[in-house]
Amino acid sequence: MTNASICTIGDEILIGQIVDTNSSRISRALEEIGIKVTRMLSIGDQRDEIISNLENELRLCPVVITTGGLGPTKDDITKAALAELSGSSTYVENEIQMEIIHQILHARGLDILDINKAQALVPDTCEVIPNRLGTAPIMVFRFPEEKFGHKATLYSLPGVPFEAIGALPDVVKDIKAHNSLTDIFHKCVMVAGLAESALSELIAPWEDSLPSDMHLAYLPNQLTGVRLRLSIYGGNREEEEKRIDERFAALAPILGDKIYSRSDDTLQNAIGTLFRGSGMTLSAAESCTGGMISSLITSVPGASEYYLGSVTSYAVAIKEAILGVPDEYVAKHGVVSSEVAGAMAEGVRKLTGSTYAVATTGLAGPGGDERNPVGTVWIGVAGPRGVKTVKKVYRNDRKRNIERFTAAALDELRLFVIGDKEATS
Amino acid sequence: MTNASICTIGDEILIGQIVDTNSSRISRALEEIGIKVTRMLSIGDQRDEIISNLENELRLCPVVITTGGLGPTKDDITKAALAELSGSSTYVENEIQMEIIHQILHARGLDILDINKAQALVPDTCEVIPNRLGTAPIMVFRFPEEKFGHKATLYSLPGVPFEAIGALPDVVKDIKAHNSLTDIFHKCVMVAGLAESALSELIAPWEDSLPSDMHLAYLPNQLTGVRLRLSIYGGNREEEEKRIDERFAALAPILGDKIYSRSDDTLQNAIGTLFRGSGMTLSAAESCTGGMISSLITSVPGASEYYLGSVTSYAVAIKEAILGVPDEYVAKHGVVSSEVAGAMAEGVRKLTGSTYAVATTGLAGPGGDERNPVGTVWIGVAGPRGVKTVKKVYRNDRKRNIERFTAAALDELRLFVIGDKEATS
Repeated sequence: MTNASICTIGDEILIGQIVDTNSSRISRALEEIGIKVTRMLSIGDQRDEIISNLENELRLCPVVITTGGLGPTKDDITKAALAELSGSSTYVENEIQMEIIHQILHARGLDILDINKAQALVPDTCEVIPNRLGTAPIMVFRFPEEKFGHKATLYSLPGVPFEAIGALPDVVKDIKAHNSLTDIFHKCVMVAGLAESALSELIAPWEDSLPSDMHLAYLPNQLTGVRLRLSIYGGNREEEEKRIDERFAALAPILGDKIYSRSDDTLQNAIGTLFRGSGMTLSAAESCTGGMISSLITSVPGASEYYLGSVTSYAVAIKEAILGVPDEYVAKHGVVSSEVAGAMAEGVRKLTGSTYAVATTGLAGPGGDERNPVGTVWIGVAGPRGVKTVKKVYRNDRKRNIERFTAAALDELRLFVIGDKEATS
Repeated sequence: MTNASICTIGDEILIGQIVDTNSSRISRALEEIGIKVTRMLSIGDQRDEIISNLENELRLCPVVITTGGLGPTKDDITKAALAELSGSSTYVENEIQMEIIHQILHARGLDILDINKAQALVPDTCEVIPNRLGTAPIMVFRFPEEKFGHKATLYSLPGVPFEAIGALPDVVKDIKAHNSLTDIFHKCVMVAGLAESALSELIAPWEDSLPSDMHLAYLPNQLTGVRLRLSIYGGNREEEEKRIDERFAALAPILGDKIYSRSDDTLQNAIGTLFRGSGMTLSAAESCTGGMISSLITSVPGASEYYLGSVTSYAVAIKEAILGVPDEYVAKHGVVSSEVAGAMAEGVRKLTGSTYAVATTGLAGPGGDERNPVGTVWIGVAGPRGVKTVKKVYRNDRKRNIERFTAAALDELRLFVIGDKEATS
């Protein structure tokens, strides 16, 4: 298996101002093509440091991926360091990237400055993968065996996560074209509504029965639940994927509706799949989730086909005036209650005329009391066959609680719509 | 200035299963006492790898902090590697940690197993800082000058973020007691509404005039704009911070209202600062941003004091029925228009009775035409003194456009409220 090293370049990670999220994304992309990341390194914006450390990484790993230090400003010096490392003193203009720079700045209505143009200049020792999402091109330096004891390639990516991740497919393609890699086959199922530990307990017998050449990974995420991934190294794609499919088929009776997708997916996409082409429509009423449910639903391209809109009723008066939640519900049961959650869902369904609606009312924190500690949420779902409310209690900080509440609400909506479908079919 | 290296040990980071958040927290804590983190490294759970890499880090940096690999299970081998690295073959029991292990397991109602007890055993070459939040003690290895070319100390912390961060104050105290440290001083200003390159061009003369001991960094973010940070190593805190303040004061006339905060901040917090305690209230009407404006505003603790709520009017019918946008506006000017953006802001302001309102209508993608290409947004802001609309054009993918639209809308709202304040004061 080919080893790789990922190096982030930039003081902002070293001083702890930003958390490096690129490296884990890059590592997962490399793993999919059978490359194992054995080292991750962060170093600062200093030319000598960059050169000596990257030389060391190139000696250790045949594939080195760097991110960062490619901005137009003076503190970004990765390009100069890579020129020196590769023995180049001549910069050449990459025409495709220059064209992209013009397009990007033009579309933003900005003048093209000299520092923008300079981004299209690269050392003559590298190949370029155009960066279609930003101004700094991806540079590929290929080193012969005699330089580092093995053939080695360095890919220099921008640090901006959007651009780095956007460039990954092209980088992966280039790595595949230039290395003889063992194939790796992965398949995923997405599981909602179960914590990693509970899921692990539930599927332990299934997990124990997996053949030794299959590797299972639990990949939990606040907003999308747990992704279960089975991998096999080497073999024939069709056969191995069939073997994985059979194992996942054996998992279905154990997990039932908790499996919401058989590919790498999100709850908002699964909801999109339920609604798209069905003629059914959707709306939301949010209190504690503050707009995040709506934001996720509308992050799906084409959501306008089924999503009508939402009301964020942060003030109690809005719950009453716009959503029509009876004020005696609030007085009698409190804002965080089954009654209010149900009335919010019904209210926004009536207001928008949607087929289904989902609503949340809870306490993300700070605050809380004995009856409703921080982390408590009531979720309401409403549809043609009635209303359902569910209480969930988490125990995280404000940000995490809002995410948990949102994921739980999307999942309850999904189960409610599926339940109706099953009842009427 | 004393340099430090932070090393995470464990396959789960290398394979991208978890994002390393410990390192940035540790780095910030070290920076506060004038220690500069010059390297961060992630390596796997392999004894030889751990030993050779940590020896290398200790040669490069007098302070090395490791996290991870201290669990009770077989795959955690950091302790054995550190015993070998420090030349120990004898383990001794740490009584304080043993006591804590008993307390923790007792509180959880669990029996104390041999693998739990083994966690209180440490190599006889280390000192112990008790871990009050978990079972694995913090181990401190001090190496004499002859071993690595300088006096060096290695701190081994657990990988669980809660425990690692919890141990930091004790670790920092130990570092301060054993090193003579140079202080470091940072200050930030937050800039909105300018791309990094345009900002750089605008402030180039100011940047060129900075004294050589001040370091400037540009830290851009989609949702919060560009953070400009000035740093100085060494000196007297009061004096150096005053010198930084003077430089930022000289920046104020150049950037004016584009500076929205003089500390590390977000636009939604800056809006919170404007509204909190003012008696003014806020609402939002979102189309293309789909709930993200509302989600960010409500991510600020205490937002309920001034934020009433929002309407996400994804369907045109909702714009008309709930927000009262005249249907002839849509027919005549199109949904993505100044008229609709202004009417949405006025509509939600009237509906909620808020002092101010912000609205967006645009095309995040896919789709678009010549008049309104993907990336076009109209932003409307409404308040007691009237309505203002602004058009912005970006050119990103759906996700990035939604983020850009959201940041631009928050910024326009901020400028509008400030404009009113200045006009009435």
